[in-house]
Amino acid sequence: MITQKELRISTQGRGTYDLSRQVQDVVAASGIKTGLCNVFVRHTSASLMLCENADPAVMQDLETFMSQLVPDGDPMFTHTDEGPDDMPAHVRSILTQSALNLPVVDGLCALGTWQGIFLWEHRYAAHTRKILLTISGE
Amino acid sequence: MITQKELRISTQGRGTYDLSRQVQDVVAASGIKTGLCNVFVRHTSASLMLCENADPAVMQDLETFMSQLVPDGDPMFTHTDEGPDDMPAHVRSILTQSALNLPVVDGLCALGTWQGIFLWEHRYAAHTRKILLTISGE
Amino acid sequence: MITQKELRISTQGRGTYDLSRQVQDVVAASGIKTGLCNVFVRHTSASLMLCENADPAVMQDLETFMSQLVPDGDPMFTHTDEGPDDMPAHVRSILTQSALNLPVVDGLCALGTWQGIFLWEHRYAAHTRKILLTISGE
Repeated sequence: MITQKELRISTQGRGTYDLSRQVQDVVAASGIKTGLCNVFVRHTSASLMLCENADPAVMQDLETFMSQLVPDGDPMFTHTDEGPDDMPAHVRSILTQSALNLPVVDGLCALGTWQGIFLWEHRYAAHTRKILLTISGE
Repeated sequence: MITQKELRISTQGRGTYDLSRQVQDVVAASGIKTGLCNVFVRHTSASLMLCENADPAVMQDLETFMSQLVPDGDPMFTHTDEGPDDMPAHVRSILTQSALNLPVVDGLCALGTWQGIFLWEHRYAAHTRKILLTISGE
Repeated sequence: MITQKELRISTQGRGTYDLSRQVQDVVAASGIKTGLCNVFVRHTSASLMLCENADPAVMQDLETFMSQLVPDGDPMFTHTDEGPDDMPAHVRSILTQSALNLPVVDGLCALGTWQGIFLWEHRYAAHTRKILLTISGE
């Protein structure tokens, strides 16, 4: 059994967005009890991660870390057509994930207690991000 | 055909742990000959990787690199409730993998000659880490 | 339905190689219309990524960034048997992906408009890289 569904997430610019509930709702509605859920972002300047979902400071610290690791406007970057956040958005996506593959147990993604599913918008501007879910199993 | 099985790995604190044999044993026992094996860690402060499995210096060098890239106790981090290794453990997890997806060929994960499956414990303290295997195929 | 096929990619040393067409051709030939395509590199010194495929400057900037993040010949590295690019190649692989998992829709990987599938050779020397595709679905 395989089900696919696209989510469209409206971001307000750079930052993280918790998709856990939306993903779990789609998995529950699929009727698949045992299997896998592939979460795929169809963009190269936004990415996905599993991360601690209890303390908002974690997301702030991740942003601080990544902004230092991949500085916006760094003169090493030549691909700057869309601004100082253009190439850093690609690098940040490469260093994180374009897809998550989550085990489905008893009709839901078997996340750990503190694991949340996050979209990380890396561009300054608001975007609509297409995320394709593929749930397969029994 | 889908089989799931949980491994519990007792870590002795920060460091890498080779899970290749345990994963291959579960895949072999599943009876699935052709398909995929999803290895999923249900935590946000330990992660997975495929890496060179022959020279122990590789693991030491990885630890050296990561400790410099994400320094424990760095004052940029505010999420420090559980100590100087708390937020770095989340960052290190984000920069590596929470899940591996391995092709199964002839009843085993088709790893390359030098590829081993490693759990990377990022916390100083010993933990019991839950790793869920989902093997699907024919 | 599951199909597996191995690609052998001859690299000319460090650099990126666009595999999008080869992967899409295998998916199309599989006859699978809805499902997933796992792309797996059986090596620890070359890796995979999804990235912007329109402007070649993106690949140059990625190389510039990664060369600074993981300097070849850095004295912190002790695993140097095969030269100054040996350990950096492993680190670069760990920070990117050994496997991609792509949704298949209407018989092709449902890549975003600007998403290409790239092999990143991290060693200086030319290599033949084995990439295993596993396509599953209906």
